[in-house]
Amino acid sequence: MNSVDFILAKRRGQEHSLAELEAFLGAYLTGEVRDYQASAWLMAVCFRGMTDTETADLTRVMARSGDMLDLTGLPYPVDKHSTGGVGDKTSLVLAPLLAEAGATVAKMSGRGLGHTGGTVDKLESIKGFRSALSDAEFLRIARELRVVISGQSTDMAPLDGMLYALRDATGTVDSLPLIASSIMSKKLAGGARSLVLDVKVGSGAFMKTLDDATNLARSMLQIGRHAGLSVRAVLSGMTAPLGAEIGNAGEVLEAAACLRGEGPEDLTDLSLELAAQVLAAAGIPRSTEELRRLLTDGTAHQRFVRWIEAQGGDAATLDSLPLAPGEHVITAGRSGHLSRLDALSVGRAVSALGGGRQFKDQEIDHGVGVRLLAKPGDEVSSRQPLMLVRHRDGRGLEAAVSLLESALGIGGPSDSEPLILGVIEG
Amino acid sequence: MNSVDFILAKRRGQEHSLAELEAFLGAYLTGEVRDYQASAWLMAVCFRGMTDTETADLTRVMARSGDMLDLTGLPYPVDKHSTGGVGDKTSLVLAPLLAEAGATVAKMSGRGLGHTGGTVDKLESIKGFRSALSDAEFLRIARELRVVISGQSTDMAPLDGMLYALRDATGTVDSLPLIASSIMSKKLAGGARSLVLDVKVGSGAFMKTLDDATNLARSMLQIGRHAGLSVRAVLSGMTAPLGAEIGNAGEVLEAAACLRGEGPEDLTDLSLELAAQVLAAAGIPRSTEELRRLLTDGTAHQRFVRWIEAQGGDAATLDSLPLAPGEHVITAGRSGHLSRLDALSVGRAVSALGGGRQFKDQEIDHGVGVRLLAKPGDEVSSRQPLMLVRHRDGRGLEAAVSLLESALGIGGPSDSEPLILGVIEG
Repeated sequence: MNSVDFILAKRRGQEHSLAELEAFLGAYLTGEVRDYQASAWLMAVCFRGMTDTETADLTRVMARSGDMLDLTGLPYPVDKHSTGGVGDKTSLVLAPLLAEAGATVAKMSGRGLGHTGGTVDKLESIKGFRSALSDAEFLRIARELRVVISGQSTDMAPLDGMLYALRDATGTVDSLPLIASSIMSKKLAGGARSLVLDVKVGSGAFMKTLDDATNLARSMLQIGRHAGLSVRAVLSGMTAPLGAEIGNAGEVLEAAACLRGEGPEDLTDLSLELAAQVLAAAGIPRSTEELRRLLTDGTAHQRFVRWIEAQGGDAATLDSLPLAPGEHVITAGRSGHLSRLDALSVGRAVSALGGGRQFKDQEIDHGVGVRLLAKPGDEVSSRQPLMLVRHRDGRGLEAAVSLLESALGIGGPSDSEPLILGVIEG
Repeated sequence: MNSVDFILAKRRGQEHSLAELEAFLGAYLTGEVRDYQASAWLMAVCFRGMTDTETADLTRVMARSGDMLDLTGLPYPVDKHSTGGVGDKTSLVLAPLLAEAGATVAKMSGRGLGHTGGTVDKLESIKGFRSALSDAEFLRIARELRVVISGQSTDMAPLDGMLYALRDATGTVDSLPLIASSIMSKKLAGGARSLVLDVKVGSGAFMKTLDDATNLARSMLQIGRHAGLSVRAVLSGMTAPLGAEIGNAGEVLEAAACLRGEGPEDLTDLSLELAAQVLAAAGIPRSTEELRRLLTDGTAHQRFVRWIEAQGGDAATLDSLPLAPGEHVITAGRSGHLSRLDALSVGRAVSALGGGRQFKDQEIDHGVGVRLLAKPGDEVSSRQPLMLVRHRDGRGLEAAVSLLESALGIGGPSDSEPLILGVIEG
């Protein structure tokens, strides 16, 4: 089958076989199939969709296009994926917590781009922390501590990277099979056997409605089933940011507090739910109450400290990471209830302060950020401080303040949305 | 509007404005918008279509992307476009006939690619004929004789050329607004004020059904209306080849015979209908019977001779153009009625003999070809000669014979399809 026939088949709504996908995408990887052919095909996929089998096959072709992490021999290798939230530091909580519960979290994690931060960026707030590990180091730490997180190797699922860049430039990002296979290809290449997906729903998330989020979750579960991966999905609200801290160092501080049992309620609850789900998927179930004790008795935090030290981080600084010195307070314009605190705008504000990347390889400022002093549903009075903005010499402050003010709404009392909107088992 | 937003707008089914089309396609012409973005947009157009206004605007943007021929001051500049038929030499008949009837045919014509030949290729069968003319020569001949045909300048509607090449490689050829605007952009750039479209229908044509052909014709008429061009369309059958000769030199000989009133009935009838329609569109109506007299009284042929000589052709050789010396006869396998004579296969056979191009800039053999000795509907007896194949030293003969044999069907008597299936006025 030649490339034009392959594109025409999708244009006509036909199902590709695994062999056809391998041939077309393999040729794309080598440059024989050109960008303009791949993008035309991607647009046809946006209109015609893909069957479950086709989506799973596409995922496998992308996963196999580069290096695959082999975690064989490590106990219960598990992983978590979030579709991206503002203030979401659950990965930092989950990694040591799951290790303490008997599973292995040995993962390559990406850097952030746009309005959400990456886990590696957050960890790099810690003095001395090394995200670039040799394979030998990575496996040694994984074996010793059952927890290790390194920066993503560029050799994993390179086809997914190529297709994602192309989708970004051609208006073909928003397609369920393409989104699901992109996420799952990296997870397949990552070598875990069990996976929990945190699918965010709401104005601050990629999926704006519960229906869309449910469809995405089901699609990824379906892929997992085809690939022999045990997957569960948690649907969680992302209208307001998660926790109180947004910004790299602030988020590490908050995660550390959470690991001592002193975290904000939403962050703690979501972390425990995600942990319980992935442990159940892995066949070593623990209740959220059992898991909560690992936070309150200090064992999860101890593993956190050992892990950070194993990757070169200075654990002594963990409770006093340097924050940007400039402080600016945003206050309530009137009395009422905080009815809106738009996550997307807060994420963009932190990015404007220098805490996020607008483009790849950009240096980021780990110390800037926003601390939320009130959360949606809270009663507030006029001129009450609502947010503390930490900036560096006023850089990006004006834009950030304008974004943050637009993020706020004060109205009458209303029921706050539940954080966890549903769980889907494979 | 950035390029991704432009693509997304079409993906969502929105209508582009003229300014948006100019911006996106202008940036594509300069390379700022990339091939992969243009192809994703083209695929979205295939799914979402374009409104009449949008299609007309796209046509104008393509027409204005390069040089435009200025035929101002020449009397009644007219043009004809055929969607491509096998054995179609009507352009050779029409050009001198329309000039004799008082209109001006001054056009740039393309070379053939695939299974249909180009008018310029056919004319170059004539010894000495020059298709590369300077602007001054072109206009001088147009003024003196009202008929001149040169090879297509690469500077006309370059955007259409770029988009067509991209469509060809990305499975996005088959889209009504894209086909219609591609054809009409070249016609707009060509400077004629009136146009007749010969929209072919049938197994040998791009449009397989009368409905598809009617839609294409209506779309082109609509574009003409927006652009102030007077257009009429003739829908004509293209199941069997037109006339008896297929192959460059053979077609010139047949056109010359037709211009003396001695052509095959189908070629003559179609030529007269097309001529009558475009003259009506131009506001100087002539009946087909009046036009037929210009063939039988020798005046159209005289103008043909003067035109060929004006472009350097040796008119003395016009009735004895060299044909390839190899001859192979294909006979009927049994008695009955010739029920099928597939134009597409005959076109491919001539191409296989060396008479057509498989790729751009390929040298072609003007002398090879096929002469049909029977036409669909004719009663034939077993072993009666049906086709004369003219080949050069057996080159491509085996493939050609196999294609030609597959083109033939002998069955019971049946009504032959009418040649002219309809006329659509603007």
